[in-house]
Amino acid sequence: MSLPDIATRVWNHTFKLDPIVRSLLDTDFYKLLMLQMIWRLHPDVDATFSLINRTLSARIAEDLDEGELRAQLDHARTIRFSKRELIWLAGNSFYGRTQIFSSDFLAWLKHFRLPDYDLRRVDGQFELTFHGRWAETTMWEVPALAIINELRSRSALQQFGRFELDVLYARAKSKLWDKVQRLKALPGLKISDFGTRRRHSFLWQRWCVEALKEGLGQAFIGSSNVLISMEADLEAIGTNAHELPMVYAALAETDEELRQAPYRVLEDWQRYYGGNLLVVLPDAFGTASFLRNSPSWVARWKGFRPDSAPPIEGGEAILQWWREHGEEPRDKLLIFSDGMDVETIEQTYRHFAGQVDMSFGWGTNLTNDFRGLAPIPDDRLDAISLVCKVISANGRPAVKLSDNPVKATGDPAEIARYLRVFGASSYEAREVVV
Amino acid sequence: MSLPDIATRVWNHTFKLDPIVRSLLDTDFYKLLMLQMIWRLHPDVDATFSLINRTLSARIAEDLDEGELRAQLDHARTIRFSKRELIWLAGNSFYGRTQIFSSDFLAWLKHFRLPDYDLRRVDGQFELTFHGRWAETTMWEVPALAIINELRSRSALQQFGRFELDVLYARAKSKLWDKVQRLKALPGLKISDFGTRRRHSFLWQRWCVEALKEGLGQAFIGSSNVLISMEADLEAIGTNAHELPMVYAALAETDEELRQAPYRVLEDWQRYYGGNLLVVLPDAFGTASFLRNSPSWVARWKGFRPDSAPPIEGGEAILQWWREHGEEPRDKLLIFSDGMDVETIEQTYRHFAGQVDMSFGWGTNLTNDFRGLAPIPDDRLDAISLVCKVISANGRPAVKLSDNPVKATGDPAEIARYLRVFGASSYEAREVVV
Repeated sequence: MSLPDIATRVWNHTFKLDPIVRSLLDTDFYKLLMLQMIWRLHPDVDATFSLINRTLSARIAEDLDEGELRAQLDHARTIRFSKRELIWLAGNSFYGRTQIFSSDFLAWLKHFRLPDYDLRRVDGQFELTFHGRWAETTMWEVPALAIINELRSRSALQQFGRFELDVLYARAKSKLWDKVQRLKALPGLKISDFGTRRRHSFLWQRWCVEALKEGLGQAFIGSSNVLISMEADLEAIGTNAHELPMVYAALAETDEELRQAPYRVLEDWQRYYGGNLLVVLPDAFGTASFLRNSPSWVARWKGFRPDSAPPIEGGEAILQWWREHGEEPRDKLLIFSDGMDVETIEQTYRHFAGQVDMSFGWGTNLTNDFRGLAPIPDDRLDAISLVCKVISANGRPAVKLSDNPVKATGDPAEIARYLRVFGASSYEAREVVV
Repeated sequence: MSLPDIATRVWNHTFKLDPIVRSLLDTDFYKLLMLQMIWRLHPDVDATFSLINRTLSARIAEDLDEGELRAQLDHARTIRFSKRELIWLAGNSFYGRTQIFSSDFLAWLKHFRLPDYDLRRVDGQFELTFHGRWAETTMWEVPALAIINELRSRSALQQFGRFELDVLYARAKSKLWDKVQRLKALPGLKISDFGTRRRHSFLWQRWCVEALKEGLGQAFIGSSNVLISMEADLEAIGTNAHELPMVYAALAETDEELRQAPYRVLEDWQRYYGGNLLVVLPDAFGTASFLRNSPSWVARWKGFRPDSAPPIEGGEAILQWWREHGEEPRDKLLIFSDGMDVETIEQTYRHFAGQVDMSFGWGTNLTNDFRGLAPIPDDRLDAISLVCKVISANGRPAVKLSDNPVKATGDPAEIARYLRVFGASSYEAREVVV
């Protein structure tokens, strides 16, 4: 006769809320790196973030219960950094450096809480907006996305029986392990988990991470998720994101200041971080213009993350640019992180092997690839292209062009101005799946 | 922070023995039906059972630790029928009949224990033999096989890491569920679990049974495993086995008595059981001779289990014989149970649909199909053709011919005599996988 843990069982049947986000460290590491810089240099800047669902066929507000969403968001607002989390941030080394977070920043974090949110339903979608200081609103991006994505999964899972659920996860595990076996065949591969925001669920992300740890060994270099990195003793991975150039650009007073904004971000960044954290994210307003206008000192940074460009073309353009600036690509690093999956990782790896150091940030297709696995097909188990972007800074509209015209966000008049200043994308529009 | 059940966790790391067989009901239902008849009619007959490994490439005694095998067999000998098990046997109805087991038989069962065993290693195999009264030794067949098969699985599983194990079972679940989906497409299918003796493990058999229950609904008619049937409130399924005609034949004094032995079994059987339990197992000494020599009253029985004959040819021969005896096959039942898997079930189902009532006993390919699933290939996860057969009765050699010459067991001189009495098989030799 098996003896269940009675308290656990009772809890499983009576809990009021099963929180999706249970720690402020359950976010991407680059958020903390950026936050320290924002808090120090731009404490008075306001930035508004807003949810944008690029997969309009998914009518999220019809799939999800607004009350449940509010309960999850409200719960996230009650969370504080715990003592042991702050001790770990202070005492752990990141990218080989100790005390990457200053003690005054950590003292401020101690009292941090997520700011208020504004939620309404419009045409089958949620309008979810975060107003306030940049140093507060920035922290909503990842938990807001993780909450909505996991609520979508949960709403799909409610219809399945006990064994259908068991088989669903069995299939997902088999599928992931088959991917791991393929990746294992790539010698010297470096890959990390970038799948927090679009994950199927927290527990599933954790399973995926532990599976990569066992299955890939040294090839698995860490996770962007800070909580999971802490718990699994992995490297926390990540550098910076589009919101930095987007806010700097929004605050620019002139077209010339606008053109210089991406490099101002890098100047500020290197005051705080060095070594392998000196990674350029060049595509906020198009990689071609970024490279064309770039001061030559940028070529001395460690690497680039060619995010929205097609990986091989985008990477080649950067290699070419390095060579033009007298830099040897073999000493450099390219990080590929845009919608990667095993096929594109294999292709990109094979293309660049021996030419440049590479690492892969594996996101949605790692932590939320349930396509075709459900016993009863359900769209709500398909990952969607949901983002949470800065839309204005100090009341001025923020814009992103990116290397894929489909991914451009912002006010159309402002987009036109940015296109005039930076030039049009050198890449074709490509469908955005995740 | 998740709170484990501390006692469970300590136990998981300190147990002395993880018993494979924990109940005397963890056996096939037909064993109990046969046992009642053997105990009543043949209490003084001795019968020796012995392990026979038809898959000689599997050198079982090299894969398994003899001490562990002895510990499992010794543990099985300590088990008694529990009070609630006896109450359930007395109170439950089987095949629609109440009180199928008489109270004096149940009173005797109360004190039943498995008799001693004789174990030695010969040429990479275990010689495992059970001597004694038929009414005791017969009960070793299923637990002995289940123990050896699960020990083989366990020895293979020891080499895998935590996630490799997780993925192995994930793949096995996916594979089984894919089979379930295919079977679901056959309207009016009747299928039962016959997989106790060759199961990968007890827990896996239970998972399979629960999965069939949820996945197939009404099409899943029950399990041959009595313990699982009791716990899952399923019908216990099964009728009789080859040991009955084999012992009757071994005890026959003349060739004519030998020829009549299979029908004497049926005469005795119908004194105890009726209705859907009147199922003929015709192949012990070849189905062709069984049908040729059979008294006509056998045609009035409910059905046949054409075990070792190819399902479609074997079934057709029986349909033909029924028609010759003026019986309408549509009122009859055929039970297919020899190494069935989805393909052969589909073929057989489609062939006989509308002609005869059918049910399928799904054994090894249900509860032990791990072929190709292991992260590191391991033969010990492949099911083998291991049987435990009666080899003598009252000191006289027992023989089985079957419809597949490869499956013949017994002393060569005796086999020759049986072939003279019954005639050679009308079927070709076919490879025996499981």
